[in-house]
Amino acid sequence: MSLSPLLQELITSLRVLPGVGPKSAQRMALHLLERDRQGAVNLASALEAAVEHIGECERCRNLSEQPVCGICEDSSRDRHVVCVLESPVDLMAVEQTGGFNGLYFVLKGHLSPIDGVGPDELGLDRLFALVEAGDVTELILATNPTVEGEATAHYIAEQLDESAVNITRIAHGVPVGGELEFVDGGTLAHAFAGRRSLRRGRDD
Amino acid sequence: MSLSPLLQELITSLRVLPGVGPKSAQRMALHLLERDRQGAVNLASALEAAVEHIGECERCRNLSEQPVCGICEDSSRDRHVVCVLESPVDLMAVEQTGGFNGLYFVLKGHLSPIDGVGPDELGLDRLFALVEAGDVTELILATNPTVEGEATAHYIAEQLDESAVNITRIAHGVPVGGELEFVDGGTLAHAFAGRRSLRRGRDD
Ligand SMILES: [Zn+2]
Ligand SMILES: [Zn+2]
Repeated sequence: MSLSPLLQELITSLRVLPGVGPKSAQRMALHLLERDRQGAVNLASALEAAVEHIGECERCRNLSEQPVCGICEDSSRDRHVVCVLESPVDLMAVEQTGGFNGLYFVLKGHLSPIDGVGPDELGLDRLFALVEAGDVTELILATNPTVEGEATAHYIAEQLDESAVNITRIAHGVPVGGELEFVDGGTLAHAFAGRRSLRRGRDD
Repeated sequence: MSLSPLLQELITSLRVLPGVGPKSAQRMALHLLERDRQGAVNLASALEAAVEHIGECERCRNLSEQPVCGICEDSSRDRHVVCVLESPVDLMAVEQTGGFNGLYFVLKGHLSPIDGVGPDELGLDRLFALVEAGDVTELILATNPTVEGEATAHYIAEQLDESAVNITRIAHGVPVGGELEFVDGGTLAHAFAGRRSLRRGRDD
């Protein structure tokens, strides 16, 4: 088929979006060109601005266009409770429940020796330093309830064995083998409310 | 939720894509930022280049970055047969069957007096001039088998009543009330093969 090369390139480029196959990419490209060129221009600018300016928060590793993200800077949030998550998508899912008012720490993955992902890649030094700094009284381990997520949670708990912090793990509600990202808000809120203690903080 | 403003803007901008709701837009934005920043940059460039350079073919009204599109310029195609379609999406669907080797004319819509779409908006003057120029022996009316598509086809046939051109209408295979864009290639090929004559060309 003799398609305009630039149109072909646009269709191919749209395939980088998750869940977009050849048919949808084609429909998207034609929709933009036929009916929403301004939307296409805005999308191009938004993509460029996001890629150029969004880095990670130096405190929590969440996506942020400032050195420290809006959540970490928000003085109304409870700095004594930190929720540890695997990814920014999970953070957004928890934020959207509106039921959590503490801070976060985003691992950007889980321990996976086979893929070369160890404690360094997850920024665990920074997490432990944060906990050791003393302000944190509870660390909620909200990694995914998968084998790797559980292993990561247990590794973190083990490493903090000597610390005074309370370590909890979200438990009820999240289906085993599931991923936080796909769980509805109510279930997630329930999982937070029903969290159980993995280890009490030591009073030493 | 305190989301990075640029991230929020990217999520909103992604919603211009057809079929993309708030959840998918969020997933797409995070996927690009977390895992495919190069893909995001490429997509931005492809969008800009497409919007800037893709206009319409001055002969057939198909999307084209040249004054005349690749199909119209392809000397191996049969210039005696012209297929009239409602949109570039339909053109791509027909091209992908590989079973049609003539030229096209894209109406970019159908007659719809209530929306102010008349013969001028569909470029019918250009279509009639093309037919009158004499090279065309068959005009295949492949507008959608909807009320408006049928009305448009009949209007075109009527206007060409005095011309020598054979006018056919695709018929078998395309479900009534359906749209060409969503019909599989086999069905479309069948619809072309089974086209029936609306009127024989006059020998005068
Ligand atoms: Zn932060
Ligand atoms: Zn053309």
